[in-house]
Amino acid sequence: MGDAETLLRLAALNTAYARTIDTDRLEEWPDFFLERCIYRVTSAENHRRGQAAGIVYADSRAMLADRIAALRNANIFERQCYRHIVGMPSILDAAGDIVAETSFLVVRTLRDGRMDLFVAGAYLDRVRDDGGVLRFAERVVVCDSSRFDTLVAIPL
Amino acid sequence: MGDAETLLRLAALNTAYARTIDTDRLEEWPDFFLERCIYRVTSAENHRRGQAAGIVYADSRAMLADRIAALRNANIFERQCYRHIVGMPSILDAAGDIVAETSFLVVRTLRDGRMDLFVAGAYLDRVRDDGGVLRFAERVVVCDSSRFDTLVAIPL
Amino acid sequence: MGDAETLLRLAALNTAYARTIDTDRLEEWPDFFLERCIYRVTSAENHRRGQAAGIVYADSRAMLADRIAALRNANIFERQCYRHIVGMPSILDAAGDIVAETSFLVVRTLRDGRMDLFVAGAYLDRVRDDGGVLRFAERVVVCDSSRFDTLVAIPL
Repeated sequence: MGDAETLLRLAALNTAYARTIDTDRLEEWPDFFLERCIYRVTSAENHRRGQAAGIVYADSRAMLADRIAALRNANIFERQCYRHIVGMPSILDAAGDIVAETSFLVVRTLRDGRMDLFVAGAYLDRVRDDGGVLRFAERVVVCDSSRFDTLVAIPL
Repeated sequence: MGDAETLLRLAALNTAYARTIDTDRLEEWPDFFLERCIYRVTSAENHRRGQAAGIVYADSRAMLADRIAALRNANIFERQCYRHIVGMPSILDAAGDIVAETSFLVVRTLRDGRMDLFVAGAYLDRVRDDGGVLRFAERVVVCDSSRFDTLVAIPL
Repeated sequence: MGDAETLLRLAALNTAYARTIDTDRLEEWPDFFLERCIYRVTSAENHRRGQAAGIVYADSRAMLADRIAALRNANIFERQCYRHIVGMPSILDAAGDIVAETSFLVVRTLRDGRMDLFVAGAYLDRVRDDGGVLRFAERVVVCDSSRFDTLVAIPL
């Protein structure tokens, strides 16, 4: 798999991932991860200090599915709308798992029409070819701001 | 035409389209469409409800040219400056016309230097190879917010 | 070098450049330029009027390194965090140096967690293959707003 192909496959993975969230098909979101995986949301400050804790942590696809079920019950998501704008990935290593870093921005639109910058940050990814489909072995979402909205409950 | 090539041609179409608007060469904008085409601007809410009406509707390149002429007469556009940031396209179908969806963001800069998030949304496109040049058979601009600025008169 | 390859190499250059700034590895920033180069920051308004002056001007890699040293001494940078979101490049000419234009957005996150749109604009680039590595012969950063923050001292 050449560099160009890897880059485009990663870009396609990122846009499919974002589109799944932005079109509110959250039940499909866990499928972007391997069964055993890491999904973590943290702040740039925590990440710099090497603190692994983060504000969201899951280590299996099942835990991700649970999060979505909880979110649906809480009925939080539908009050607003999210829009991911995702840059092109920087591939840092492609010898085994693909290691990549990608900047992103999420704009939130509230019911009354107001928009704001919700999150800016970087995805730090470890991606594996799982029988022809790229999936995340690990996705660490590093948010530039450490002032988290309670609503960061939604997948980033 | 391979997947990678299609993706890059679509990306190039999107950047050329955005650049034409952002550099105020609006007279060239209708050329991105087939002579018989659909250009429609609507809100996510209307789109979800299946309402086709939208707030802007044109079904030919000539109508698009008329819009630009009207806009120039109204002399609205020059008071501010727009900047499109366009994500990579998700190709949904490439068997006949290319069907794709692409997230975008428009930042507006006013004369006094203030910037705001003007529009966030998605392009829902049907694109055709028109003698070696990709053009829009249909571009539906779905805006996340339903609170439209009157100035949405400019092409998105 | 085919069109697709050029486009992806440029995109990779842009993401690497942005990542160097956003991860505060500013000392590596001058390496993205040829030893004799132009780096210029200007406003859209000045650019339209053909005024070359700009608010930042450097014509060698050494001058860029000096800027970073000065910035580190002034200790300004660490108080906030920047996030570049960079679109795909439009290649305008690839016969000799690659001439390209690319839209970008910078979101700034302040220490207290507030985020704002810091800069929106376009990179007007002349890029050369320097022994297998793409470097900027010229990067003109055209900012949509002419109201510059004093902190535009950081590389864009």
